[in-house]
Amino acid sequence: MKVGVIFGSSSDMDIMKKVTDTLKSYGLEYIPAILSAHRMPDLLKTKMDEMEASGVEVFIAGAGLAAHLPGVVASHTVKPVIGVPVKAALNGEDALLSIVQMPPGIPVATVGIGRGENAAILAVQILSLKDSTLEEKLRVKREEKKQKILEENKNIETLLQEWGQGR
Amino acid sequence: MKVGVIFGSSSDMDIMKKVTDTLKSYGLEYIPAILSAHRMPDLLKTKMDEMEASGVEVFIAGAGLAAHLPGVVASHTVKPVIGVPVKAALNGEDALLSIVQMPPGIPVATVGIGRGENAAILAVQILSLKDSTLEEKLRVKREEKKQKILEENKNIETLLQEWGQGR
Amino acid sequence: MKVGVIFGSSSDMDIMKKVTDTLKSYGLEYIPAILSAHRMPDLLKTKMDEMEASGVEVFIAGAGLAAHLPGVVASHTVKPVIGVPVKAALNGEDALLSIVQMPPGIPVATVGIGRGENAAILAVQILSLKDSTLEEKLRVKREEKKQKILEENKNIETLLQEWGQGR
Amino acid sequence: MKVGVIFGSSSDMDIMKKVTDTLKSYGLEYIPAILSAHRMPDLLKTKMDEMEASGVEVFIAGAGLAAHLPGVVASHTVKPVIGVPVKAALNGEDALLSIVQMPPGIPVATVGIGRGENAAILAVQILSLKDSTLEEKLRVKREEKKQKILEENKNIETLLQEWGQGR
Amino acid sequence: MKVGVIFGSSSDMDIMKKVTDTLKSYGLEYIPAILSAHRMPDLLKTKMDEMEASGVEVFIAGAGLAAHLPGVVASHTVKPVIGVPVKAALNGEDALLSIVQMPPGIPVATVGIGRGENAAILAVQILSLKDSTLEEKLRVKREEKKQKILEENKNIETLLQEWGQGR
Amino acid sequence: MKVGVIFGSSSDMDIMKKVTDTLKSYGLEYIPAILSAHRMPDLLKTKMDEMEASGVEVFIAGAGLAAHLPGVVASHTVKPVIGVPVKAALNGEDALLSIVQMPPGIPVATVGIGRGENAAILAVQILSLKDSTLEEKLRVKREEKKQKILEENKNIETLLQEWGQGR
Amino acid sequence: MKVGVIFGSSSDMDIMKKVTDTLKSYGLEYIPAILSAHRMPDLLKTKMDEMEASGVEVFIAGAGLAAHLPGVVASHTVKPVIGVPVKAALNGEDALLSIVQMPPGIPVATVGIGRGENAAILAVQILSLKDSTLEEKLRVKREEKKQKILEENKNIETLLQEWGQGR
Amino acid sequence: MKVGVIFGSSSDMDIMKKVTDTLKSYGLEYIPAILSAHRMPDLLKTKMDEMEASGVEVFIAGAGLAAHLPGVVASHTVKPVIGVPVKAALNGEDALLSIVQMPPGIPVATVGIGRGENAAILAVQILSLKDSTLEEKLRVKREEKKQKILEENKNIETLLQEWGQGR
Repeated sequence: MKVGVIFGSSSDMDIMKKVTDTLKSYGLEYIPAILSAHRMPDLLKTKMDEMEASGVEVFIAGAGLAAHLPGVVASHTVKPVIGVPVKAALNGEDALLSIVQMPPGIPVATVGIGRGENAAILAVQILSLKDSTLEEKLRVKREEKKQKILEENKNIETLLQEWGQGR
Repeated sequence: MKVGVIFGSSSDMDIMKKVTDTLKSYGLEYIPAILSAHRMPDLLKTKMDEMEASGVEVFIAGAGLAAHLPGVVASHTVKPVIGVPVKAALNGEDALLSIVQMPPGIPVATVGIGRGENAAILAVQILSLKDSTLEEKLRVKREEKKQKILEENKNIETLLQEWGQGR
Repeated sequence: MKVGVIFGSSSDMDIMKKVTDTLKSYGLEYIPAILSAHRMPDLLKTKMDEMEASGVEVFIAGAGLAAHLPGVVASHTVKPVIGVPVKAALNGEDALLSIVQMPPGIPVATVGIGRGENAAILAVQILSLKDSTLEEKLRVKREEKKQKILEENKNIETLLQEWGQGR
Repeated sequence: MKVGVIFGSSSDMDIMKKVTDTLKSYGLEYIPAILSAHRMPDLLKTKMDEMEASGVEVFIAGAGLAAHLPGVVASHTVKPVIGVPVKAALNGEDALLSIVQMPPGIPVATVGIGRGENAAILAVQILSLKDSTLEEKLRVKREEKKQKILEENKNIETLLQEWGQGR
Repeated sequence: MKVGVIFGSSSDMDIMKKVTDTLKSYGLEYIPAILSAHRMPDLLKTKMDEMEASGVEVFIAGAGLAAHLPGVVASHTVKPVIGVPVKAALNGEDALLSIVQMPPGIPVATVGIGRGENAAILAVQILSLKDSTLEEKLRVKREEKKQKILEENKNIETLLQEWGQGR
Repeated sequence: MKVGVIFGSSSDMDIMKKVTDTLKSYGLEYIPAILSAHRMPDLLKTKMDEMEASGVEVFIAGAGLAAHLPGVVASHTVKPVIGVPVKAALNGEDALLSIVQMPPGIPVATVGIGRGENAAILAVQILSLKDSTLEEKLRVKREEKKQKILEENKNIETLLQEWGQGR
Repeated sequence: MKVGVIFGSSSDMDIMKKVTDTLKSYGLEYIPAILSAHRMPDLLKTKMDEMEASGVEVFIAGAGLAAHLPGVVASHTVKPVIGVPVKAALNGEDALLSIVQMPPGIPVATVGIGRGENAAILAVQILSLKDSTLEEKLRVKREEKKQKILEENKNIETLLQEWGQGR
Repeated sequence: MKVGVIFGSSSDMDIMKKVTDTLKSYGLEYIPAILSAHRMPDLLKTKMDEMEASGVEVFIAGAGLAAHLPGVVASHTVKPVIGVPVKAALNGEDALLSIVQMPPGIPVATVGIGRGENAAILAVQILSLKDSTLEEKLRVKREEKKQKILEENKNIETLLQEWGQGR
């Protein structure tokens, strides 16, 4: 069970790395690629077929601007496709709409603007249908975040003094 | 394997029906419920636990306005949660942002505004990881839509005369 | 010299007809097709190659929602591609951004939301580089519109009484 | 009489501090907490019950992105809840809509984006219904601000020279 | 204990009626007025002073377009002021921003676009600080709405058939 | 002293009529014209020169979509130019931005979307610098509107019953 | 003949200075003031009456956020009022809508976001109705700008090398 | 065969240089000019006529804010006009709408915000109708970009480590 991680440009690598780092933290294998929906339409299909042949069960695709990549990826497979809007102009609102507003029949599971970690967690949630140990890992991570917040509450007045100058 | 379908209000039933009709067309069982994130926070959790105990593997949640329901559903489970923004004000842009812009750790797989059928298809794609017959059904339906479009092309000039007055 | 006119769905036929009617009024031949970027990615390329072989020199592509079609058409050719955003949700702003915000290297010549006639006129302007009789036709049509407005000015007070109740 | 001040993340502490500093300047007690609507849904209810038991009469809740916290807080109490949208993406417009567009029955008293001080003043105004000395303090502060502005007017030409280079 | 209900124009009466009907359902007295921030700036202040003298403890103010009325009402009192954006253009987004984005020092407790009932409920919540019987009424109404939704769930499949055709 | 009233298309006549009706109600003369910034750029200048020669002291120009007309009118004169955005797409937001966001040096005095009457009143206010009887008329009209609102307040409860069903 | 220049806060002084510098460059006298629509509603009226008594014929008012000041200034006078939206949040779109979308009867002549110089030039254009020497000055300034641009064109290739690296 | 490149202000030179650099890379001649639609309406026409007389077959026009220049250029010619929105306020959304939303009859072929290189490539695509060697150059450039991306894929894990920290 692997995740195919396809981003549209090397300029999106900071978001792509959020995806791959999160997948690693759950012990999941992934196949990364930089592939453009517009510069290599044929190759995209070929590469995706190879990925599926290697065991990819879920795709994560990210792009900015007129972000067609996730939708085009979804047109080449019936596996679930997760889309990540990347902010490159207009605060990422163009990428969000280009990804989420897919026509009937070809959905893209869209996450928030720049939310690479959430795309990875969604992939883990989907794969946990087949591997129930992932479900347990998801619960543990949530509990850890909860404990971290509870810890912060213990000295909240100090934190307010130290952190509360930022914006 | 079932799908839990939770909408926030009976005024969203047209979109909810798109979800349940599409699930039926793939032969999938679902458990429907109208549950509000704000009017029955405790009951929501109870009902979701019952759903999971009955075999629900994926949730679809839809709401309009400040659409908190899908995110709150996602906070109660580690199963995949699909969110459907419903248009009730501001062309549905408020619901879209309230659903898609989830913080790190708790993703909601968001589909387009009012796209109930796509939420259902995404659920089918996710469940096809466990039931490969669903994958075949997805391919058949796509092929059918393709054939329908090809058919339309055969007499496109007639269609242009007949249909091209609408807007 | 022909124009390839590709729209994403039969529900966009009213805008498509504005394109073909305008092309006809300039005496230009066109090849119409309904082709989806997502439902038939391979066929789209095949059809476009056929169109180019038949003498298509400019493409006009229109779609609504996450309107990927014009960009995908542009990825398959180095001929000029004109994109028409169709209003299906969010007043057409999603389609506009999905079409105009193309990444560097693959431009789409975007016209206004629902402006099928302008897409056709732009095609005529482009083709007039090879056929100078088109340039003359463009001048004549502009002059006609100008004369029509001048005519309206002659009895503007009457028009104000008759028409000024609308909105 | 106390104010419960709940923010969704330690990254919002600069706005949270505006709230607590302003409450202090009116001599009001508050109970601060970092609590997430999604990471600790049960605990949120428990903590709020404790706060109400300790004398909290008004809640202030702030969050960014898909800012569900204020609405979820409002679902657990019939006390007035003041919501503060925090800017984390899209200039805070996502947070504003997620907070203000609450469905019928569960209002959140929303203030401007990042306006922690106004949330606190609104809490003071509400509590002044029970403690009329607060009303006097509100009037004094307003008068002070007015005097400060009048003072600025005395040497406005100098100020124009000194300050008018900024943007 | 009364509520002052001030709207900017008789064209906003449908939203104003939502306010007054909801206040009546909680047994609260109100003083209604149509007063414009721009057409009668002096009179607005006079009327508000009379209202406060008659026992008004909370103001609700609603307006559309460049909706200055709630902010101007807030400038004349230190009582809590609730603002209701009315949709008259741009889907009410102009009114929302004109009301919620108040500068530091003069908050307006803003509710959703057209949400007259929520403005009234917020007023009840504020007044319940002084009259605890109101708190009980708020709980009863919430419970009623919850029971109504539970009732709907009993025959949800029938409802899906009957209601799910709307949009 | 006259007002030049130039609109871009006969489809904007309802807004144009609001302008001319309001000017008439103040006893002001106007010269109306339908002139397009794009279809007759030279003629526009000629017509405007004629208007100025006939005594036009203020221009009102209205248009929808990419509403260039008011800005182009402003480029041909140093008289004050008032711009009226007309709603034709995107709720008129495109026209508003195309009119108000003029570069340094060439201002257009922009009024609200579709606000023909306000454009006329602004023209009256400007002309009242030369004709003080207009100032008196402006005061009378404002007083009339104020009285009308005061009248409405007398039987506000009846109005709430009669009018409060609309939206 | 003077111009009253009223801004809402000393934090807007950079835009205010653009106004006053431009007025000075046309040799016009002005009376500057920092006055808040909300903190000093009575004083605002008093100050404005003094300004009119001193010969003010046009007002320029600027503010950010829920920018009520220009509209409130317009409610106190029948002289022309020019409004300047100041960018403080949401790129100034909140201020723009709060200023331009005035209800029928009370116009504000709105200029672009942060366009202090254009507000001043508009005031000069209005005052030129009474003082025709101003009209000549407006023409001279425009001609100067035109000459400056023509000068730039002379060595445009050099400029492209030197300046074309910025963004 | 030449390209006329007209921008509205020397402050847009970074985008203008993207245009001219890209044209040069295709071996195309261009005539650059800084010309304002508002400051020199007559001269703009004269200059454009000169450009056409010198062999200009396509125009590229760019501007920010209320970006009227491309539309005004289009009104003076029947040659194809390409418009480039420049970001100067509101993230360039004002310029985009002012350029793309042209009325029927006068199209502007709009590219993405700040996308000077795409405007140039579109011009090359249009001119390739007359000069087929350009078509070959377009194919070569696309192939080069494709190869560059394929190269990046070879050491994608290293790139993820090195580049993935940016945002």
